Amino acid sequence: MATTHLMTDAEVDANPQVKVVFDDIRATRGSDFVNNIWRALAADPPGLKRTWETVKSVMAVPGEIDPKTREMIYIAVSVANGCSYCVHSHTAAAKAKGMTNQEHGELMQIVALAASTNHLVTALQVPVDPEFDVK
Amino acid sequence: MATTHLMTDAEVDANPQVKVVFDDIRATRGSDFVNNIWRALAADPPGLKRTWETVKSVMAVPGEIDPKTREMIYIAVSVANGCSYCVHSHTAAAKAKGMTNQEHGELMQIVALAASTNHLVTALQVPVDPEFDVK
Amino acid sequence: MATTHLMTDAEVDANPQVKVVFDDIRATRGSDFVNNIWRALAADPPGLKRTWETVKSVMAVPGEIDPKTREMIYIAVSVANGCSYCVHSHTAAAKAKGMTNQEHGELMQIVALAASTNHLVTALQVPVDPEFDVK
Amino acid sequence: MATTHLMTDAEVDANPQVKVVFDDIRATRGSDFVNNIWRALAADPPGLKRTWETVKSVMAVPGEIDPKTREMIYIAVSVANGCSYCVHSHTAAAKAKGMTNQEHGELMQIVALAASTNHLVTALQVPVDPEFDVK
Amino acid sequence: MATTHLMTDAEVDANPQVKVVFDDIRATRGSDFVNNIWRALAADPPGLKRTWETVKSVMAVPGEIDPKTREMIYIAVSVANGCSYCVHSHTAAAKAKGMTNQEHGELMQIVALAASTNHLVTALQVPVDPEFDVK
Amino acid sequence: MATTHLMTDAEVDANPQVKVVFDDIRATRGSDFVNNIWRALAADPPGLKRTWETVKSVMAVPGEIDPKTREMIYIAVSVANGCSYCVHSHTAAAKAKGMTNQEHGELMQIVALAASTNHLVTALQVPVDPEFDVK
Repeated sequence: MATTHLMTDAEVDANPQVKVVFDDIRATRGSDFVNNIWRALAADPPGLKRTWETVKSVMAVPGEIDPKTREMIYIAVSVANGCSYCVHSHTAAAKAKGMTNQEHGELMQIVALAASTNHLVTALQVPVDPEFDVK
Repeated sequence: MATTHLMTDAEVDANPQVKVVFDDIRATRGSDFVNNIWRALAADPPGLKRTWETVKSVMAVPGEIDPKTREMIYIAVSVANGCSYCVHSHTAAAKAKGMTNQEHGELMQIVALAASTNHLVTALQVPVDPEFDVK
Repeated sequence: MATTHLMTDAEVDANPQVKVVFDDIRATRGSDFVNNIWRALAADPPGLKRTWETVKSVMAVPGEIDPKTREMIYIAVSVANGCSYCVHSHTAAAKAKGMTNQEHGELMQIVALAASTNHLVTALQVPVDPEFDVK
Repeated sequence: MATTHLMTDAEVDANPQVKVVFDDIRATRGSDFVNNIWRALAADPPGLKRTWETVKSVMAVPGEIDPKTREMIYIAVSVANGCSYCVHSHTAAAKAKGMTNQEHGELMQIVALAASTNHLVTALQVPVDPEFDVK
Repeated sequence: MATTHLMTDAEVDANPQVKVVFDDIRATRGSDFVNNIWRALAADPPGLKRTWETVKSVMAVPGEIDPKTREMIYIAVSVANGCSYCVHSHTAAAKAKGMTNQEHGELMQIVALAASTNHLVTALQVPVDPEFDVK
Repeated sequence: MATTHLMTDAEVDANPQVKVVFDDIRATRGSDFVNNIWRALAADPPGLKRTWETVKSVMAVPGEIDPKTREMIYIAVSVANGCSYCVHSHTAAAKAKGMTNQEHGELMQIVALAASTNHLVTALQVPVDPEFDVK
């Protein structure tokens, strides 16, 4: 259960500030499906708009990192932050953008390895080697 | 300052269980430089061996995810887990494997965006859409 | 499902060490409703007592930070620690103490912004400016 | 040591995309001092611009939560995320906006209490009470 | 719902790479029950094998820390990392290895105390005493 | 650098509310050394008193978990929460209470393993087996 109301399509249609964002989500993604995060954010239209514009700008504008890899990095952060919803939504997105089962398996192993060495290094309080310094 | 002694090269040379791992690190990487995490782990030779073998297997064996991207995913996890040493060492590794400044900037923005939506979703306790279910 | 039994009212009534705490929770809050965290802690009466006394002392004793703001700070920490139950219970408490939808929306945006800059700063390993030092 | 170069004022002056953001930071804050996070972000001008505009919008636009409280919430999130730089910079900001020593002490106790119950609840896997549901 | 398919016993029997690991899990534990983490990992046989061999080596090989205490440490880490499944499975394992209700209660209080001082220390940015240095 | 002033012995002697706590720390531990966390907390005497009394009650009162193991659990939580100061102080305390190098090495491997499976399980969103339910 959410800590806020999830806005229905009927409520969206009655709220012009929200509707313009939902229309843009649907147009950008070429799909009528709008997932729950946007319905939860809709109670705060300026927050909804800011979040969507950042998502669109960071994830949908062409750059050097390809869209599939962006989703895989998103999964990695979401796992480490323990966000169940985000893991679900970005795993689905990564698969939709071409992530194979083999890539998913490799991603899992990299995330698990990083977590283990992150904890080892923190436990041992390993000092940063001067060789890693950026001049 | 570390919570354990960092083993020096002289001490490594006097410890056959450790030396065989350090020799393999140097051979695998084609470099004499062995960074501090291995010197900290060396106090526990079985732990050193297990950690290195997992790193070698997960990061150095060819797979579908290229080596540069593996390091970028490693950075993402290490940031979310707040491991300063790991962020330094894997940022250096990613650059050594070809990460451009543009890619680094994009990675930063994806990590920052994921963190913000991770927190929003947790704060709003957004329920997982049934569309994301794996049958 | 919990990893411990949730104590029922009948069981509480039969356990004097637990009953005295439950009675104080009800008296302090002016309500018969005792939520699940206390029923889970009740298996360890000294831990139950210590936790309740700290909650009462930190959250219910008058101070400079008003009760509504205390709950909003509690939400912020609980989100960053990924505690679903705590987010639910303290969002309900903040609303009961007067948090408006507008304030909730602003809180969400501050939490999301902080999370994103927390991750950026950790990723870039930004050194603390000497201007921030406490002499 | 940072994982990126911290841009100096001379370098900022030579980079129009960065200079316009730094000028706005100085004008908005009414101070010449620009702290290190902005100098670290400057290597990626679009990321610098996006981050600053979000900070300005979320933290500097008038709303229902007063500026001092916003900084205190920022501290709470930064502590839970383990961001040393952010704790330093936002503690300085909260003090500059009027946080008293008494308020700082109360904030510390709320953060510490929230952390302890966050962990208890996760350890006991306490189920959310239906009373906390948002219809 | 998982982000991957949970392999059934029939599917395991048809997959020799997976079957050999499941057979070893059953033999090592002296039980036919194989819990869901292994069914989720089975989609990636090399990852399944690596994870199981590390678990077997770290948790099942005799050492100085007794098996019950190992499970209690595992719980502590899993709580701090917010892993619901892991808290459930290792609480069950600790009980199976003899953890009493009294020990569980003490563990809860240590975890809660550590969390609160972890947050206090991070909030106050307490510098490490030179007395704690390892020469 | 701390975000608060670290109280010196001379300042402690001039502050009766703080002095009584410092005297009790010294008497309980049988040592004149008072480490920095208490000097940082001293700015808020009620918070100092509450924190010390909880530490004394949870860590120093005899129970079923022995003092050395309590410190090792404290280390585990502090690592997962990324608290550098806490890792240092409780590693020193565990060694003072008899933790051997072998035990430290085993602790490191359990913490690292837990972290890796915590992340795997979160990434795969493994559902809790009904067998782990507490009736």
